Amino acid sequence: MTLPPSDKALVPFVSVNNMMRLVHHIGLETMLRDLTAYIEADFKRWERFDKTPRVASHSEVGVIELMPTSDGEAYGFKYVNGHPKNTSEGLQTVTAFGLLADVYTGYPVLLTEMTLLTALRTAATSAMAARALAPRGADTMAMIGNGAQSEFQTLAMKAILGLKQVRLFDVDPEATTKCARNLQNQGVEVVTCRTPEAAIEGAQILTTCTADKQLATILTDNMVGSGVHINAIGGDCPGKTELAKGILDRADVFVEFPEQTRIEGEIQQMDPEFPVTELWQVLTGAAEGRTSAQQITLFDSVGFAIEDFSALRYIRDQIRETAFYEELDMLADPDDPRDLFGMLQRAG
Amino acid sequence: MTLPPSDKALVPFVSVNNMMRLVHHIGLETMLRDLTAYIEADFKRWERFDKTPRVASHSEVGVIELMPTSDGEAYGFKYVNGHPKNTSEGLQTVTAFGLLADVYTGYPVLLTEMTLLTALRTAATSAMAARALAPRGADTMAMIGNGAQSEFQTLAMKAILGLKQVRLFDVDPEATTKCARNLQNQGVEVVTCRTPEAAIEGAQILTTCTADKQLATILTDNMVGSGVHINAIGGDCPGKTELAKGILDRADVFVEFPEQTRIEGEIQQMDPEFPVTELWQVLTGAAEGRTSAQQITLFDSVGFAIEDFSALRYIRDQIRETAFYEELDMLADPDDPRDLFGMLQRAG
Repeated sequence: MTLPPSDKALVPFVSVNNMMRLVHHIGLETMLRDLTAYIEADFKRWERFDKTPRVASHSEVGVIELMPTSDGEAYGFKYVNGHPKNTSEGLQTVTAFGLLADVYTGYPVLLTEMTLLTALRTAATSAMAARALAPRGADTMAMIGNGAQSEFQTLAMKAILGLKQVRLFDVDPEATTKCARNLQNQGVEVVTCRTPEAAIEGAQILTTCTADKQLATILTDNMVGSGVHINAIGGDCPGKTELAKGILDRADVFVEFPEQTRIEGEIQQMDPEFPVTELWQVLTGAAEGRTSAQQITLFDSVGFAIEDFSALRYIRDQIRETAFYEELDMLADPDDPRDLFGMLQRAG
Repeated sequence: MTLPPSDKALVPFVSVNNMMRLVHHIGLETMLRDLTAYIEADFKRWERFDKTPRVASHSEVGVIELMPTSDGEAYGFKYVNGHPKNTSEGLQTVTAFGLLADVYTGYPVLLTEMTLLTALRTAATSAMAARALAPRGADTMAMIGNGAQSEFQTLAMKAILGLKQVRLFDVDPEATTKCARNLQNQGVEVVTCRTPEAAIEGAQILTTCTADKQLATILTDNMVGSGVHINAIGGDCPGKTELAKGILDRADVFVEFPEQTRIEGEIQQMDPEFPVTELWQVLTGAAEGRTSAQQITLFDSVGFAIEDFSALRYIRDQIRETAFYEELDMLADPDDPRDLFGMLQRAG
């Protein structure tokens, strides 16, 4: 006979199914706006966080990473893999889950799926950066790479920036068809394109989000005119970039955490002294963002632990008093904390 | 309406309750012997592992750590906190959970409670080290610190080494009473002691396992005679030690991973060049263990990620075809891996 676990032993868990229910309950665009607000609030108190580059375990076919951070009151981390070859085997390139804990007790307070949540927070972060950096009135985006992130990127730009048109291109036309179908009736005009050059026509925001793990050139130097904002999502690990070096020479580059971006981002192509601006400083007003209409701004996004932390905080706040989680018996909690053995014995 | 998640989205989860059922199903001493075998097998292939000191987030009241490692085929990590003040608030000093994943796909294959499992693997590791290092015929152990680990330490020494007598001491007599009560009818003679000096009388193995986060002196230099094996468990983070420096000068010190032990173990008291032997090399025969009956051997144990990895491997192997786990819907797994958004939409 075993006794039911005590309350202290239980950790709220948000499954994929409950995350989907929560998104529909809140509404996708509302959730993207809320997440942007949570992420921006955390970026504005950047200096309060413990920051460390992610802890990566590389293999020939992919990477598994842990991304921890803490603001001194809460501690969060995400487990995330990146396996570009997975798609061809019917698996996700990226899957993730995350955990939030109380720094004072060390006890976890939330475990949640983060495959969906990562797509949402990545899109919210892109939109937050574009709101700060894109040319005034930007309402057209080229979306190059029409995989799992593309619809979320598009709808975040709509919800946060008022995007009116998205221009899709992917080397695989089926991906474009899938993305266009999903974006029907979402309030954004969708134009499918057969070349990347066609996709960037008239776009003030150029988003690249491709998955191949290689030094690719999704955007060549001569494709990029002045007065655009580039939102580079896919160059996010060593040996994986999307932009021609010449673009970086002409652009003003904004990053999350320079120590990490120099290893993983587009700027891994540049020397270690290449000047970058930290996005959080633009948001607080400590650094300048866009200073002219002709400027090329580039958000060299690799994804940072604080964005996951914000997303975890948001989910914890949202699930209170709802049915969108279950309780997991994950922590041993004997009546007498020194009597772990006695708890085990009594369960026998 | 939502569809049930696909098989690929499900991760086996072992709750605290199921872990307790599994221990009783296998039998505690059998499990301790099995764990010792798994840990020893992994120590013997030490060079195959990715090794890194744990990633720690310190606060004034405790620490939260992530301990990852990989053998190239599987990847494991443990989340563990250490909050000595928790006990006085009715919480565990240490709680933990762990995850095992497939390096080839990056997909998790096991999530499990590890508060109990950590106590088991720590005890198994201690017994593995004592079997290699303690004087021949050692059958009496002083157990100083009678908290959550003490019974597990004792029964592992019984199961793996044939321990006949344990001599208990704790600054809190209630802890000793609890430990003695739990060890009734377990096949080990229990002697409760009022002083640490009384506890070490006639003991060939001296185990220290106390929780105060300070530079304490649980064993003074003149308490430790020749020909003993010291199993130092409690000195396991910066600023937390248990042994007088003089003991370290007289002992041959064996460690798990020197880079981590120099930061966290008893040898944080010594200079960075202080000679130590890696335990795995003793197990493979590449280094000598005990070379004389008079020698003091010291296992300066801080707990290392490979021990957790071995324990995760063991649990994964044991739960197959059993009812001791449930399936968690933790990974989003759309039919078309690029169509995460479509999966979300269809759930609406």
